Amino acid sequence: MIRVAVIGATGYAGAELVSLLDRHAFVEIAALFSGVGGRTATWATLHPSLHQGEGPDAFPFDLDLLIASDVEVVFLATPNEVSADLVPKILEHDIRVVDLSGSFRLPNAASYPQWYAFAHPAPALLAEAAYGLPEWFADAIAPAKLVANPGCYPTSILLALLPLRHLLSKDQTIVCDVKSGVSGAGRRQEVEYSFAELTNNFRAYGVGKHRHEPEIRHFLGINGAPPFVFVPHLLPVNRGILSTMHVRFATPQTDAELESIFASVYGTPSGACPKEADADTGAPTAKAPFVTIHPPGVLPDLRSVVGTPRCEIGLALLDDGQGAVIVSVLDNLLKGAASQAVQNFNLMFALGNREGLA
Amino acid sequence: MIRVAVIGATGYAGAELVSLLDRHAFVEIAALFSGVGGRTATWATLHPSLHQGEGPDAFPFDLDLLIASDVEVVFLATPNEVSADLVPKILEHDIRVVDLSGSFRLPNAASYPQWYAFAHPAPALLAEAAYGLPEWFADAIAPAKLVANPGCYPTSILLALLPLRHLLSKDQTIVCDVKSGVSGAGRRQEVEYSFAELTNNFRAYGVGKHRHEPEIRHFLGINGAPPFVFVPHLLPVNRGILSTMHVRFATPQTDAELESIFASVYGTPSGACPKEADADTGAPTAKAPFVTIHPPGVLPDLRSVVGTPRCEIGLALLDDGQGAVIVSVLDNLLKGAASQAVQNFNLMFALGNREGLA
Amino acid sequence: MIRVAVIGATGYAGAELVSLLDRHAFVEIAALFSGVGGRTATWATLHPSLHQGEGPDAFPFDLDLLIASDVEVVFLATPNEVSADLVPKILEHDIRVVDLSGSFRLPNAASYPQWYAFAHPAPALLAEAAYGLPEWFADAIAPAKLVANPGCYPTSILLALLPLRHLLSKDQTIVCDVKSGVSGAGRRQEVEYSFAELTNNFRAYGVGKHRHEPEIRHFLGINGAPPFVFVPHLLPVNRGILSTMHVRFATPQTDAELESIFASVYGTPSGACPKEADADTGAPTAKAPFVTIHPPGVLPDLRSVVGTPRCEIGLALLDDGQGAVIVSVLDNLLKGAASQAVQNFNLMFALGNREGLA
Amino acid sequence: MIRVAVIGATGYAGAELVSLLDRHAFVEIAALFSGVGGRTATWATLHPSLHQGEGPDAFPFDLDLLIASDVEVVFLATPNEVSADLVPKILEHDIRVVDLSGSFRLPNAASYPQWYAFAHPAPALLAEAAYGLPEWFADAIAPAKLVANPGCYPTSILLALLPLRHLLSKDQTIVCDVKSGVSGAGRRQEVEYSFAELTNNFRAYGVGKHRHEPEIRHFLGINGAPPFVFVPHLLPVNRGILSTMHVRFATPQTDAELESIFASVYGTPSGACPKEADADTGAPTAKAPFVTIHPPGVLPDLRSVVGTPRCEIGLALLDDGQGAVIVSVLDNLLKGAASQAVQNFNLMFALGNREGLA
Repeated sequence: MIRVAVIGATGYAGAELVSLLDRHAFVEIAALFSGVGGRTATWATLHPSLHQGEGPDAFPFDLDLLIASDVEVVFLATPNEVSADLVPKILEHDIRVVDLSGSFRLPNAASYPQWYAFAHPAPALLAEAAYGLPEWFADAIAPAKLVANPGCYPTSILLALLPLRHLLSKDQTIVCDVKSGVSGAGRRQEVEYSFAELTNNFRAYGVGKHRHEPEIRHFLGINGAPPFVFVPHLLPVNRGILSTMHVRFATPQTDAELESIFASVYGTPSGACPKEADADTGAPTAKAPFVTIHPPGVLPDLRSVVGTPRCEIGLALLDDGQGAVIVSVLDNLLKGAASQAVQNFNLMFALGNREGLA
Repeated sequence: MIRVAVIGATGYAGAELVSLLDRHAFVEIAALFSGVGGRTATWATLHPSLHQGEGPDAFPFDLDLLIASDVEVVFLATPNEVSADLVPKILEHDIRVVDLSGSFRLPNAASYPQWYAFAHPAPALLAEAAYGLPEWFADAIAPAKLVANPGCYPTSILLALLPLRHLLSKDQTIVCDVKSGVSGAGRRQEVEYSFAELTNNFRAYGVGKHRHEPEIRHFLGINGAPPFVFVPHLLPVNRGILSTMHVRFATPQTDAELESIFASVYGTPSGACPKEADADTGAPTAKAPFVTIHPPGVLPDLRSVVGTPRCEIGLALLDDGQGAVIVSVLDNLLKGAASQAVQNFNLMFALGNREGLA
Repeated sequence: MIRVAVIGATGYAGAELVSLLDRHAFVEIAALFSGVGGRTATWATLHPSLHQGEGPDAFPFDLDLLIASDVEVVFLATPNEVSADLVPKILEHDIRVVDLSGSFRLPNAASYPQWYAFAHPAPALLAEAAYGLPEWFADAIAPAKLVANPGCYPTSILLALLPLRHLLSKDQTIVCDVKSGVSGAGRRQEVEYSFAELTNNFRAYGVGKHRHEPEIRHFLGINGAPPFVFVPHLLPVNRGILSTMHVRFATPQTDAELESIFASVYGTPSGACPKEADADTGAPTAKAPFVTIHPPGVLPDLRSVVGTPRCEIGLALLDDGQGAVIVSVLDNLLKGAASQAVQNFNLMFALGNREGLA
Repeated sequence: MIRVAVIGATGYAGAELVSLLDRHAFVEIAALFSGVGGRTATWATLHPSLHQGEGPDAFPFDLDLLIASDVEVVFLATPNEVSADLVPKILEHDIRVVDLSGSFRLPNAASYPQWYAFAHPAPALLAEAAYGLPEWFADAIAPAKLVANPGCYPTSILLALLPLRHLLSKDQTIVCDVKSGVSGAGRRQEVEYSFAELTNNFRAYGVGKHRHEPEIRHFLGINGAPPFVFVPHLLPVNRGILSTMHVRFATPQTDAELESIFASVYGTPSGACPKEADADTGAPTAKAPFVTIHPPGVLPDLRSVVGTPRCEIGLALLDDGQGAVIVSVLDNLLKGAASQAVQNFNLMFALGNREGLA
């Protein structure tokens, strides 16, 4: 059993993570913390799935308590500045870290004042952090001391666009028109996030200012050209992200070509494509069991993924293959946060890639 | 034109009230206030319907400004303690008041510490205040200096049960199982009222402690017997109240008897029943144009009244007429607050009862 | 491995059941059917959780195919008349049955024409059927050939009221004011169940005519007295039932007395109460692991149980213990249907009571 | 008084239209029809706002009855093929027509088989029909015998893009990523439109096949270049459309330039811009009272327009003015259908442009 701790266990993503770790066959939850100066919460109140079982209560964060809990890895589901402050202190004690915040995702410390409104306190760690998108960076994640779990929007966009990146027009704008459920904003007490303001409503927000934009640009390798537009919207649902991506190709594509590219990267649901052996069971397994590619012209809907660790991707060609609409969906609290963190954990401890998730 | 002011214009009920008053043919909105220490808000941002027109902006409340505005009547859509404090000061200046809070609804000052958690600062005014349920207390409302606009739950229950009160069993419990949309709680910034907590959710709250309970008991004339139960619930919708009332009769009733009782009190939609002459047009008008009684066995749904100034009531007999389920619906921000205030205003200034509402 | 089949696998409850059975360690899903004359559906499209795995597709029901599949037990999640017709034919082949419809829940064939609008085709089986409420009828369920899985409303009411039944006043009405999410009505194509009609809406329905009423009356043992009222409402949410029960006691009760009664029946979450040994692991287990009783005065909300196999119950005393408001919540597709069926299956095959569910 | 009839009065848009016409000071509703072979519906059940008043019931359409009703104008809120069939017959009787369907919006009869799946039965009328976007085509609408009321999506896009059309890059794709509430699909009885399928859900639909696409392309004057992408999505709300438009300019723009362009076309809310005299009152009026332009960088949300006859437009410049995100919102049943039809009616009969709407 691998002893783990979670900091930020009382937030929405943190509670999902605790629920997943509780069911993980190789995990023992040794300690839970609510956050720095946070509230105390009993085990049973963290997540509906925990009502029946037993586990530690969550207390305000205390570094001594964490060290005394003798864990091998800590998950942080804390605000950006809290993570930036705590991660270096935890790493000093030779504890590995999976950080769900944005504090170690950007390669360049200079980006933080502009996008995150704070000067980064540990710039040296940015180069050490592995970006925790398991389908693309498994080799870096496996040995990492520090994994920066990707943002929910970047996950939904990168999984869809990275396989096609080399085919895209160098001039035509890449438009990412994305829509997120409200839980993506975390536990909020502003009037702006009250039920009365959000039900029956829909709006764009943070145009040109959203913290996930530099993360997406960096991992797509966009430097100046082509133009890149990222417009997030707030859906009147609790969970789920649907990203609609509008792209143009350098040369016309066919359904068959694109299908083949996606299959070579992620495998196929039916298992006809590249497989790996599962580290735990030895059985062959789909290459990317949590990415589902739909047949050409079939676009996924939000509900198919809510409550699941999967990202689903569909694509419709336009204008004789000169352009495409690509739609990806995922649960922002799972593949966009907690289940992705478990995927990273499985890689870090050489466990089967479905362990605790399927 | 009658010059009016609204205090609390930036809340949900206040903004609805401003929207109604703006369309009222005999009203001039002379001044708007957001509340004591409240925010400043432009006319156009108060309510979607005001985007196109012109009117005063809302400022933090200032008594001198109010007096200078030379109004005949002030509407208060303010928290209970604010109303309790301001109403005596306003009445001193010979300005009439329609108060949408609960501060002048209970007859006995001794009830306030228990139910409202404050000692009443102006107990003498309680006897002077007219209870503003226009269908039942028009004679007291017309000449009143101070009208206490009823609560949303009491309106929905009293309109349904007052006509039947004399028929009810003296022993069997009267059960009011009521459900309200979230806007009934006002503009709230607690996590508890956030979208993420309330969507897909439903719960009872305030059992035995809700401030509307003594108001309902008093106007139903319940003193000890029969037992009375009032259980409010929070619906995942923005607007509307549906009250389900479970009663038993002293002797079995028939559909025809009950239909006749309701018609004698409220008239009928088709106008076959008692009418009054409209003060404004001289034309005959339904006795209670904003109460609709459904045929026996037909129960109203919430959406039929959202956005309207009406209360709809339906009834199904049970056990050979020994009991009944009565359902009433209304829009908590209109018949439960703002449009009821306009009905009271129309009575106070001898205007037609549909004026500004239909 | 126990080979099973599901008929009605393409409905909402059927798809949940398939998802649960797929994860059950002792189950092999041998065949799936959509219904008589139903549609064909691939494994992956039945339920989001099945996208990653492998299993049989669902075909229109065919008795020969069922027999050829060599199963020990069949689950029927089919309309009432379909179950009434198929169950006798299946039992003939010595296959055990868990029926999720209402066709074998009432003890008396004479009730069917009135409440279900059909003459019962197999009245002799009614006496043989075990009523599948596992917390109360485990002894009858374990050896049964035919288990009639309870309705969602009856489950929520019986679990809350059966422990208190002997304490209730013989004269005062028992009021069950119940509210259900829309999935309780199944896959519907009527305008009445369209999104546009139900969103932002709420209404009572089926007063005095709902099929679950005789089922509740029978198992509560109500014959004439006391009066019993059952009023269902349709909530604008997809899943979940909240039942608000208004009762009066023969003699005043205390919180401690009622808490003790519930603990003696269901045990307590903390495990301080009666336990049984788990058949699978030998470890002691809570007596009723899927019933959670809240502390006195704490009422559960809907979201705590959606997606879980649990029923939560809370209670608030009124009028010095002479009456009470009892609130129970459950997921209508799980504890109100599919997970309850798995509990029954576990009893029928002497498996641990949490097997496949926790 | 101008006598009017409505065909399709029992649909969502038709019922809104009847409600508006009922309050219109210069209109007498002479006859209502539900559709060809439609249902009969009483006046009071058509729309909540009609519960209190009096008016004709709606009957299945009958041409003789229509002619006997002696009306000057007929509104059709009927399916495309019904309108295509009825409009020529009605025009023969010298009755003017406002058609809310798509049957007379496209200039070329050849487009109908491809986009609407029927051969147009009256191609000669296409040239005669005025496109009923009042802010742009008032001169053609005023004298027209036949007005083709625009689609809801085209209205939201054309009002936002027509003022900027001449500034757009000739090469860069115009992306219209649009989101509509469910009522846009009309009264539907498919499982696909049931509450259980749509709540908590979100999806794109009709990519490359939506009937509004050729209408938008035509009025934007897009022939081949630049590439144009139109992707509609279905929001889990009842009413409202939000269109997010992603454009690039031929040369960089400034906020001030764009603000000035919009003001010259639509005027400003504060009335600082071009006004016309109101035909009814003689008072000066904003040029386009139902189009509100937000200050640069401020994007509108959906709820600000639901229940109103307005379209709100906001814009944020990107990349130093080389591109922009433009967001427009409107109520699909009002500015996207019924209130736009009333605007057209006001133009056709030389009435004030706010008549019946503000």
